[in-house]
Amino acid sequence: MDALHGAVNRCLYLDENHQLTVREKPVPVPGPGSVLVRIMANGICGSDLHFYQEGRLGNFVVDRPYIPGHEASGEVAALGDGVRGLSVGDRVVIEPGIPCGRCAMCRSGRYNLCADVVFLSAPPTDGTLCDYLVVRSDAVWPMPPALSFQDAALAEPAAVAVHAVNRARFSPGASGLVVGAGPIGLMVVQAFRAAGGGDVVCKDLIGKRLQAAEQLGARRAGPDETVEADVVFDTSGSARACAGLFASARPGGCVVQVGWPAGNLVSMNIADFLDRELDYVAVNRYANAFPAALQWLGDGRIQTGPLVTHVFPFDRSPEAFAFSAQHPGEVIKTVILNR
Amino acid sequence: MDALHGAVNRCLYLDENHQLTVREKPVPVPGPGSVLVRIMANGICGSDLHFYQEGRLGNFVVDRPYIPGHEASGEVAALGDGVRGLSVGDRVVIEPGIPCGRCAMCRSGRYNLCADVVFLSAPPTDGTLCDYLVVRSDAVWPMPPALSFQDAALAEPAAVAVHAVNRARFSPGASGLVVGAGPIGLMVVQAFRAAGGGDVVCKDLIGKRLQAAEQLGARRAGPDETVEADVVFDTSGSARACAGLFASARPGGCVVQVGWPAGNLVSMNIADFLDRELDYVAVNRYANAFPAALQWLGDGRIQTGPLVTHVFPFDRSPEAFAFSAQHPGEVIKTVILNR
Amino acid sequence: MDALHGAVNRCLYLDENHQLTVREKPVPVPGPGSVLVRIMANGICGSDLHFYQEGRLGNFVVDRPYIPGHEASGEVAALGDGVRGLSVGDRVVIEPGIPCGRCAMCRSGRYNLCADVVFLSAPPTDGTLCDYLVVRSDAVWPMPPALSFQDAALAEPAAVAVHAVNRARFSPGASGLVVGAGPIGLMVVQAFRAAGGGDVVCKDLIGKRLQAAEQLGARRAGPDETVEADVVFDTSGSARACAGLFASARPGGCVVQVGWPAGNLVSMNIADFLDRELDYVAVNRYANAFPAALQWLGDGRIQTGPLVTHVFPFDRSPEAFAFSAQHPGEVIKTVILNR
Amino acid sequence: MDALHGAVNRCLYLDENHQLTVREKPVPVPGPGSVLVRIMANGICGSDLHFYQEGRLGNFVVDRPYIPGHEASGEVAALGDGVRGLSVGDRVVIEPGIPCGRCAMCRSGRYNLCADVVFLSAPPTDGTLCDYLVVRSDAVWPMPPALSFQDAALAEPAAVAVHAVNRARFSPGASGLVVGAGPIGLMVVQAFRAAGGGDVVCKDLIGKRLQAAEQLGARRAGPDETVEADVVFDTSGSARACAGLFASARPGGCVVQVGWPAGNLVSMNIADFLDRELDYVAVNRYANAFPAALQWLGDGRIQTGPLVTHVFPFDRSPEAFAFSAQHPGEVIKTVILNR
Repeated sequence: MDALHGAVNRCLYLDENHQLTVREKPVPVPGPGSVLVRIMANGICGSDLHFYQEGRLGNFVVDRPYIPGHEASGEVAALGDGVRGLSVGDRVVIEPGIPCGRCAMCRSGRYNLCADVVFLSAPPTDGTLCDYLVVRSDAVWPMPPALSFQDAALAEPAAVAVHAVNRARFSPGASGLVVGAGPIGLMVVQAFRAAGGGDVVCKDLIGKRLQAAEQLGARRAGPDETVEADVVFDTSGSARACAGLFASARPGGCVVQVGWPAGNLVSMNIADFLDRELDYVAVNRYANAFPAALQWLGDGRIQTGPLVTHVFPFDRSPEAFAFSAQHPGEVIKTVILNR
Repeated sequence: MDALHGAVNRCLYLDENHQLTVREKPVPVPGPGSVLVRIMANGICGSDLHFYQEGRLGNFVVDRPYIPGHEASGEVAALGDGVRGLSVGDRVVIEPGIPCGRCAMCRSGRYNLCADVVFLSAPPTDGTLCDYLVVRSDAVWPMPPALSFQDAALAEPAAVAVHAVNRARFSPGASGLVVGAGPIGLMVVQAFRAAGGGDVVCKDLIGKRLQAAEQLGARRAGPDETVEADVVFDTSGSARACAGLFASARPGGCVVQVGWPAGNLVSMNIADFLDRELDYVAVNRYANAFPAALQWLGDGRIQTGPLVTHVFPFDRSPEAFAFSAQHPGEVIKTVILNR
Repeated sequence: MDALHGAVNRCLYLDENHQLTVREKPVPVPGPGSVLVRIMANGICGSDLHFYQEGRLGNFVVDRPYIPGHEASGEVAALGDGVRGLSVGDRVVIEPGIPCGRCAMCRSGRYNLCADVVFLSAPPTDGTLCDYLVVRSDAVWPMPPALSFQDAALAEPAAVAVHAVNRARFSPGASGLVVGAGPIGLMVVQAFRAAGGGDVVCKDLIGKRLQAAEQLGARRAGPDETVEADVVFDTSGSARACAGLFASARPGGCVVQVGWPAGNLVSMNIADFLDRELDYVAVNRYANAFPAALQWLGDGRIQTGPLVTHVFPFDRSPEAFAFSAQHPGEVIKTVILNR
Repeated sequence: MDALHGAVNRCLYLDENHQLTVREKPVPVPGPGSVLVRIMANGICGSDLHFYQEGRLGNFVVDRPYIPGHEASGEVAALGDGVRGLSVGDRVVIEPGIPCGRCAMCRSGRYNLCADVVFLSAPPTDGTLCDYLVVRSDAVWPMPPALSFQDAALAEPAAVAVHAVNRARFSPGASGLVVGAGPIGLMVVQAFRAAGGGDVVCKDLIGKRLQAAEQLGARRAGPDETVEADVVFDTSGSARACAGLFASARPGGCVVQVGWPAGNLVSMNIADFLDRELDYVAVNRYANAFPAALQWLGDGRIQTGPLVTHVFPFDRSPEAFAFSAQHPGEVIKTVILNR
């Protein structure tokens, strides 16, 4: 741990008054089975911005200062006792949902549904917007050699897309429609293609996002254009968009719900659903998705270039949040670099 | 064809004025690849009653006399040229949806979604409420030896239930909730158990149906009782019931929509759907389901006794329709016997 | 822990000289996350007998005394710190393979393939043939109310059968062939039916076992009778039987290998395999199988009566082993009762 | 049909004396439901060469002249009555296996296992090495606009690879090992990647084939190098290679048998199979695979360049066969162009 002697651990705190402050904290020490990660980059997620602006999301409330961020890459800086398969210096990304590993959901491969999951950055649990973080050793995944820390920080949203594609049912070469071209939608466009999907159409209201979708190989469509596809992904959460999902799916097709609607209730056309005998599947975070996300980031099947519109140094994190929250038409994804 | 010399072919016609009439028609002659079936029993389906009362269902309209009925058993009475694997005298049931066998849906095993499917009894196509019917030879399935014609007539609704269970995703021993204890719901209770399901709860508003569900091994629950299950089947089509389906499913579970809601739009709680990461699957008739339906009718895993509340001879078919339509709380399933 | 004051913990030890001895040991104390189970019944597995007779199995060698047994039922006698969802007095069975819960195999739902799994009774790890045992709390499963401890002891071989059926691919109503009518084969007959399988044929050389198969609803066939089925399970491990497996499967069918051949190499007819486009799947213990095993033992779909040919009290455990090893034609399953 | 007035229909005949002769025949006329295809290109398959050299393959014997070839592209030249969805001039490929569309295999989506399938070029059924051919209209698939006839002729071996990948079970990003780098092996390398597979290693004895594999993104390995992968495809049919397949698969992995071993019997290590709990799946031609094959040929995910080592004009077809048969180390795939 000598190398860490005197190391500074800057942490970004968000408090109940929507204030962001960088504070220095001691570098934590990894216990048995855990590792210390020196964080190098973080993406800002829409949920981070939501907590920043609204102070709550679902049942999670910001009632005392906590550290946001859960899209992080870094280097292993120290190993706790008993950790195998990792070495100091390994370049890694962090899977921020840490399940119990023992319940029926964990045992059956759906650990994202573990009732006891600890999710980094879900208040009051601290997240990854800091310089040093201790996590259980099975929560880090080695990065492909050629990948930069900046790109690797997007492994987490890529994992959401991989999971969405894994949950979908389709045959190779199937056509896709992705509703919503934000960071998740743009990742889904790419993951669907990487997993064998065919032609993809992307819908959004924001021109900049549609341009990114086009750069990534999708055809753009206006919100009112009638599109039919074998697999329809909603990443928008728009109640209006959701109401039309079943009508966009071909007979025998699949509709994948990734976006959360603002209100919980959505009016769905069940006759369309039955007539076409569709599958409608929900996506809640991810399970077993980081390996493919990293594989495809590493071999170029998932590109981050068109997504990352803004980059800030760590010390300007508060500005990064403020700018991203205020310019939704301009910002797709903001990345914060620790060094 | 000597045995058919002088045979009478009574046919039940429903016309655009809601009138049912039995008329005698010539016995048809099977062409190449077809068989003549001497019909022995028919179940009356809810859709038959709907056409009788309303004159239309979805896009299908009764605008000239046609023969209802599509839940039929009988004997092979004659073979067209080139028919293999069947003999005169074979006891069979009829699968009433006859697909093209060549389109992408047919080729991929989902022939119920064939755009060119011919469905017996969907007006103006004649159905099975007659004495003699010609069908393509691959539309008949041999009956298990011990099964009566009356029981075999229920192979069609049993096939709906088999298909619902095939479409569901669940692990052996999973718990089930069946909403709606009409003929389809009571078949789903049994098919779910037969396919490996565990404990089943059944909800309905009608006491007689709940009693039948109990006889078939389900626990009954009132419409407002909170029940949670791994797999939730809606066979009611009630918009109110549909609105609560997602809340009744356990995390990682599956909701199966079998019933058609009267209005097309249903308000669904997508937050429940996402939070539990559910699968929601539609059921549109059946494909590849008759063999299991017949297997389970034959070995007793599917019982018809508690379902068949009323039996009429063929000549009283108009009365069978009128009675069934007027006594929904008393009739579960009516069967018409040709002899 | 007062109730355990003065409790006796008899343990059956097998040593490197094939000697079985009952010794008294202190009652262990459960640590955090663990429970103390008062064992009530144990089945003797073929692998226990193999270690007894041969002193080794695969890479596992008896080089010092250890406790055999891994088919156990009992009562929760004490809870370690932090255990939720269990109470003292709960009737439980033990799942003897205890996985790490963190590796890629565990995370993906195939925890039976965890490289770090601890398997009770695989020497030198002690098994369950004792009065009191401490296990991790997620290694016990609650028993259905009506089940006896003797029946529940067979949940472990039932779980092998459930897993075999889960690994198989078949449609409801499919026909089955089970090669080998030992305890696992007889469980597979029942689990296959419980999971939706249709008619089952069973092959064995031993008349007593075939009688048991018949009692459980299978048709018996001689070893040289030609049988074709949709799903073929080998539970015999006989190289001769394995060589004919592919020829017994129908086109598009599935062959499931449960039994381990004595020699590792088996000559297989790949042309049969390709011509029929079969699936051939291996079964290695079980994962996520105990809940269904217990459900079906509880609701009577899995019967133990025809399997349990011999029962011994715990103090006569050495005799139970000796008798079982010497009378393979007479013994199907031996159970040892602690009280 | 005016445009065909005076058209020449050259046909390549192979006889029972291993002689190949080009003869002119009348242009056939499509009956109801069929189309006339003007053939533009044909690949020569290994089975064509096998019939040419050996006069038989499996149960198929060349006992009178027939037309080989089943990897064909062309243009629709005329439509029979009742054909919808196709127009004269459409560029198409031919799926050479024509199933009955009515049996249980066809109905369940596995039409390649139809007992009544007619396979073009399986003697005595004529194949596609001619200028004009009549086929059932559902046996032709439209080509992507940008694809050349030469490339499209390889849709058939690409479909084998798509089917192999569909039959395999793997998670996105899984690693692959392809044993055998002939035309099918090189297609499998690409289809596996296109369907979401990760890094691929390819084994062969012939340097030219390994070079092609490298060009297509695989890492080459010598026949004795130890390689482990999540999915192992055998396209070699070598009994020696097959014997080692299970040892090359990772725990929980899948082995896919595409190649037919020369002798039917192969000695397999079942202990490796069980220990890793593998899936071993057979591939017999293809079903529902042409759409993805054409999609991926069209969007560049499947390349034909490194495969097509030799091209001949139709009139030199006999020479094309002779050269290909005599130079297995030099020829990977030979294509014959009609014009």
